[in-house]
Amino acid sequence: MREDNFRKVIPYTPGEQPGGRVIKLNTNECPYPPSPYVVRALTEMDPDRLRLYPDPLCTRFIKALSSYYKVPENMIFAGVGSDDVLSMCFMTYFNSGREILFPDITYSFYDVWADVYRVPYKTVPLLDDFSLDVEGFKAGNGGVIIANPNAPTGRLEKTETIEEILKANNDSVVIVDEAYIDFGGESALPLIFKYDNLIVVRTLSKSRALAGMRLGYAFGNEKLIKYLNDVKFSVNSYTLNTPSILAGEAAIEDDAYFKEIRDKVIKVREETKQSLKEMGFEFCDSMTNFIFAKKQGMDAKAVFEKLKERNIYVRYFNKPRINEYLRISIGTDEEMKTFIKALKEILE
Amino acid sequence: MREDNFRKVIPYTPGEQPGGRVIKLNTNECPYPPSPYVVRALTEMDPDRLRLYPDPLCTRFIKALSSYYKVPENMIFAGVGSDDVLSMCFMTYFNSGREILFPDITYSFYDVWADVYRVPYKTVPLLDDFSLDVEGFKAGNGGVIIANPNAPTGRLEKTETIEEILKANNDSVVIVDEAYIDFGGESALPLIFKYDNLIVVRTLSKSRALAGMRLGYAFGNEKLIKYLNDVKFSVNSYTLNTPSILAGEAAIEDDAYFKEIRDKVIKVREETKQSLKEMGFEFCDSMTNFIFAKKQGMDAKAVFEKLKERNIYVRYFNKPRINEYLRISIGTDEEMKTFIKALKEILE
Repeated sequence: MREDNFRKVIPYTPGEQPGGRVIKLNTNECPYPPSPYVVRALTEMDPDRLRLYPDPLCTRFIKALSSYYKVPENMIFAGVGSDDVLSMCFMTYFNSGREILFPDITYSFYDVWADVYRVPYKTVPLLDDFSLDVEGFKAGNGGVIIANPNAPTGRLEKTETIEEILKANNDSVVIVDEAYIDFGGESALPLIFKYDNLIVVRTLSKSRALAGMRLGYAFGNEKLIKYLNDVKFSVNSYTLNTPSILAGEAAIEDDAYFKEIRDKVIKVREETKQSLKEMGFEFCDSMTNFIFAKKQGMDAKAVFEKLKERNIYVRYFNKPRINEYLRISIGTDEEMKTFIKALKEILE
Repeated sequence: MREDNFRKVIPYTPGEQPGGRVIKLNTNECPYPPSPYVVRALTEMDPDRLRLYPDPLCTRFIKALSSYYKVPENMIFAGVGSDDVLSMCFMTYFNSGREILFPDITYSFYDVWADVYRVPYKTVPLLDDFSLDVEGFKAGNGGVIIANPNAPTGRLEKTETIEEILKANNDSVVIVDEAYIDFGGESALPLIFKYDNLIVVRTLSKSRALAGMRLGYAFGNEKLIKYLNDVKFSVNSYTLNTPSILAGEAAIEDDAYFKEIRDKVIKVREETKQSLKEMGFEFCDSMTNFIFAKKQGMDAKAVFEKLKERNIYVRYFNKPRINEYLRISIGTDEEMKTFIKALKEILE
């Protein structure tokens, strides 16, 4: 067998998915169950439908998004989680052979997608306070991708900053990954009507409590969405299965429940910030469902391990500039109290 | 916006998915519902689990396949339908820059994947009886993909033929797409223990009545499966959602039901062959859940349209060498009787 047959890559490493009774604060899931509308949609689904292919256009999910966000259906794309959507975006929009740009500290899948699709890239270092170096994104490029709020820092950039980057990049596509926007940020969504180079990507995994269903979507002008759909239909005609289309529709329709659980997450996040501050932790003012925190003199990796011994899972990244930090997803009030208590004991 | 940013492709066109009460014989779905085990697995699933990411390794589905087919778990890969599995295979195994080979008449997604992943390819014309030109697959190549039984012809090749092609291609990966193997063919599966260049791809969409759930899988030696998983984890960590993992496990475990519905499809297929033969149709001796048939002097496109007017959907391909044929999926006994009656009336 000739080895040059193979595409060899270093894959992304997702956070652990431990079984059993643990406090799971490591993959930014929602601590509350999905909407009762979702449960009803799945219960009422006729299982006989599963013998037929799903709707390749995901019409019911797209229509629900269109109605909720007031965006025409032909400006919306759906995928198997925002990872699938972002992956398709890399394939579709970053083909010029010119370097794409993204921050050095951001979602660690971006460089993996660049590698797997052979897209050249350059990272633009965040400033010391983890804010975007806007000038760095004004250099000629083959595309830009920015997570806002950023992960794992939790830091939110103003829409004006995003717009400044859009204006400086008329020639290339700018993707704004808004996986965490529902937890307090202002979305760039209205800008899709003003800039033909903007793609806004979202997920139902975090604020809609549907990580297990794999649902993501994107907004952009009609032409960008058409190109994205052409690539999708060249990879897999039917990506979303029937239960996920129905669950997606139901989750979007239950706005009251969405706001209720989002507000609970925000309340617990602010209380957790307060507790961490009192313990001497430093962190960006997170507008997400996690906090990225360090403490002077703390061995973050050791604390990560000690928390795990107590069945409390947080995330630690052994990477330059961020290896003193822990990323802590916001759980329930009770889970965060247990976490803070354990953290205090470990640090004593 | 610079147009060279974009990957431009001509996407695959799936068969129509009409709503309402129609007789749907156009996308080779199963006319019977999925196993009661599947219904139970979905009903018993705790909806609260959907707030958590699914198992990225699809362990329960893989374990069920391993146990059923007596293949070690590290020789099995799972994906979102066999389309997802095949798409990943194209990305992973066809990277040498040398031309890959497949028949001129076969699953019409192969050239689409080749185009989207920029894989050069050459088609090897089928012989006049739609059998494989084995010698044509012995030329130097960057990979081979063969559907067995073939679609849309329905023709089955012997395992000896597959083995001859495997032996002639030590240097490259040979993919055997066995989407329809359960309907009467002998699988190449045992050959994965003998040839390190073989990948066998399967689906639960046809013989397991789960097209709506999107479940596919592949067998191959440990090294091939590892490379495939590396690419998968570089594209999307969590491809199968939680309901599909549970449904896949349940479907594989219900062997008795699988055999019952498979046997019904085969019985109705043979009866349909008999009816078509009596009407003067010609066709390969299909070992699939469809029949690819023509009749001297019949305008296939016109008949396809007239059937549609009667709410009976079959598939017509406006392509060289096959534009005189209709591809007719096997429905229930009653559906096929209605179809034959309508066909007779149209041809009178």
